[in-house]
Amino acid sequence: MAAEMVNPRSDNASDSGEGADGVTDGEPFDPAFALHRGGKMAVQATVPVRDRDDLSLAYTPGVAKVCSAIAEQPELVHDYTWKSQVVAVVTDGSAVLGLGDIGPEASLPVMEGKAILFKQFGGVDAVPIALDCRDVDEIVETVVRLAPSFGGVNLEDISAPRCFEIERKLQERVDIPIFHDDQHGTAVVTLAALRNAAKLTDRALGQLRAVISGAGAAGVAIARILTEAGIGDVAVCDRKGVVSPDREDLTDVKRELAGFTNKAGLTGSLEAAMDGADVFIGVSGGTVPEEAVAKMAPGAFIFAMANPNPEIHPEVAHQHAAVVATGRSDFPNQINNVLAFPGIFAGALQVRASRITEGMKLAAAEALASVVADELSADKVIPSPFDERVAPAVTAAVAAAARAEGVARR
Amino acid sequence: MAAEMVNPRSDNASDSGEGADGVTDGEPFDPAFALHRGGKMAVQATVPVRDRDDLSLAYTPGVAKVCSAIAEQPELVHDYTWKSQVVAVVTDGSAVLGLGDIGPEASLPVMEGKAILFKQFGGVDAVPIALDCRDVDEIVETVVRLAPSFGGVNLEDISAPRCFEIERKLQERVDIPIFHDDQHGTAVVTLAALRNAAKLTDRALGQLRAVISGAGAAGVAIARILTEAGIGDVAVCDRKGVVSPDREDLTDVKRELAGFTNKAGLTGSLEAAMDGADVFIGVSGGTVPEEAVAKMAPGAFIFAMANPNPEIHPEVAHQHAAVVATGRSDFPNQINNVLAFPGIFAGALQVRASRITEGMKLAAAEALASVVADELSADKVIPSPFDERVAPAVTAAVAAAARAEGVARR
Repeated sequence: MAAEMVNPRSDNASDSGEGADGVTDGEPFDPAFALHRGGKMAVQATVPVRDRDDLSLAYTPGVAKVCSAIAEQPELVHDYTWKSQVVAVVTDGSAVLGLGDIGPEASLPVMEGKAILFKQFGGVDAVPIALDCRDVDEIVETVVRLAPSFGGVNLEDISAPRCFEIERKLQERVDIPIFHDDQHGTAVVTLAALRNAAKLTDRALGQLRAVISGAGAAGVAIARILTEAGIGDVAVCDRKGVVSPDREDLTDVKRELAGFTNKAGLTGSLEAAMDGADVFIGVSGGTVPEEAVAKMAPGAFIFAMANPNPEIHPEVAHQHAAVVATGRSDFPNQINNVLAFPGIFAGALQVRASRITEGMKLAAAEALASVVADELSADKVIPSPFDERVAPAVTAAVAAAARAEGVARR
Repeated sequence: MAAEMVNPRSDNASDSGEGADGVTDGEPFDPAFALHRGGKMAVQATVPVRDRDDLSLAYTPGVAKVCSAIAEQPELVHDYTWKSQVVAVVTDGSAVLGLGDIGPEASLPVMEGKAILFKQFGGVDAVPIALDCRDVDEIVETVVRLAPSFGGVNLEDISAPRCFEIERKLQERVDIPIFHDDQHGTAVVTLAALRNAAKLTDRALGQLRAVISGAGAAGVAIARILTEAGIGDVAVCDRKGVVSPDREDLTDVKRELAGFTNKAGLTGSLEAAMDGADVFIGVSGGTVPEEAVAKMAPGAFIFAMANPNPEIHPEVAHQHAAVVATGRSDFPNQINNVLAFPGIFAGALQVRASRITEGMKLAAAEALASVVADELSADKVIPSPFDERVAPAVTAAVAAAARAEGVARR
């Protein structure tokens, strides 16, 4: 009773007038609202604080010895605090889901969701940090100042092209992993699915020509990881068509992209680029006409990942492709970032990696693909998010890659 | 097993070589180190994430409706996220315990300790934020940017006089409670103990003349709250003696202090000021000679709160005083901030207060004193930190005061 009286959450519940059906008086009739009431997460102590003896160890005076030890030997912070267990999930609320720029407060439910997925799937603690600032350098400076308290930073839902610059600048400034999940999480899972699709149809990545619809955070990162993995060719399209060196409207990031993609020298529309392509990867949110889909090469792979409406509906895609994947949970082959980020951070934190390298991302994709390597089918080129083998496999592969690449600190 | 494999904490434990005695190979032989291994806290989900249905409510696509609702009606952030349950425990590591300026990383064990006390005693979630910056305006700007994610900010172990300016500037910039516990937590508990000591000896606060040794964060705040509570007179002493208007070495804060304290117009040493004083309050860490103690008024109160060495040892103090309190748990009457901050924040969060007013602090002190009002003795002018009546009483009083003062938002 005493505990309830002082628990603001309990108070919320008693004030909310929730009925047995979980729907609250005056709140929208949707189970998501009932579920979100009072938030989705909490902090818990992992040591006892039952009596004076406990208090004198966990707090003063006992804690002073631990503080002094860290002051003398800074790396002990990883051993004697939760720093190396905890990730900051940082956003500015500028590109939240498909909702766009809704600001920091409105983005919090997504950041809390991400935090509990970190815990549930990776055993990693995570804290939502929605920042009230937009300037690239202000965001960078703020995260640099926060860095002592965290073992890593997951950047989330920050609009392009600022997200690229923020990530790059942060990586130069701090010695903990900085990982923009909208870029690299999506890229890792996409590569894993592509590897398995190629394996299933007995092709090598080097034989495949891919077209990516969307040159934002995810599109750029997917182009990069496919290139590193040895894809035959990849062309990235934005609203104006193929990103190619002759275009004069390119941002710095797209200019860079034009430099290492599109060996075939394509120009023109997305639809034209899809003619004869082996792989379509949609991270744009637009719609692709069936005529363009029909002109893809035989045995194509279609990963139409826009949510909630895939660029190509799976029913249509199946008529023209050997393997179809989406971002949705109600179709087979869900390309879901939760397959990657929990294990990637768990692995990086386990060895106290100073950063997440390209090699660690490639290793994560390999490990993710390997989980279902012996049970491949057109409807199973990627594991389910609830496959319990995923996070341990990704964690181990990422930790090993960090050691191999010399960024592990233990 | 799968969960263990990906849990960095489990990995720590298995790597640490801890024996049955809880002492780790190669680590200092002190139970505090074994207890601190892997940190003292964790995050937990408060909603299930067992299957696709759960995921589609707690994360996409269900979460989007909640985000949109908050974007349209910003105050809903308090209902549908953990914002109004969670406090940031913010430090720059510049004045940690008695250790001084040990930096952000080394301060983390204290901030984690504080966080778990928030949870244990107030049911309030709290997150340690140790900042890598020292400039007043940089700290202020950083906390302003963090504010959307938190329901309140507990400033901790920031050195004076910067702590005063940081708190004041933050209160002007954000609409959530900002509370520097080293100042106000200590002040609230001291006032509560003083109220009960006065009651026990049948005196009114207005009859008492107090001397405070120490003009740092705690000393200044105690002087302020005692003045607001109607103390007869209070003189504050720093290393150079009584803070009085004639001194030319005063900081802005001490000059302000000189303006509202020391009605008697004392000048000179602490020892001189103690001559005939009714109350000694030590928050300095120095030592007071017994001769000075012996010259205090009959029936004096001695609150010697320096840790681990009280300014006046309780055995000595008892020879000259009616009531003796310290900051230590192994003597009676422990003036411990944990009696105040959990309930103060729980009460403020419960009514979504925009700030913590002087009235809320006074109400907290009254409530804290009232818990043991019927069981007063010289050895019990303040409850034990483990008295379960404390937090509910403080919470209720603070929430009511917030409503009465017009700073509550529900």
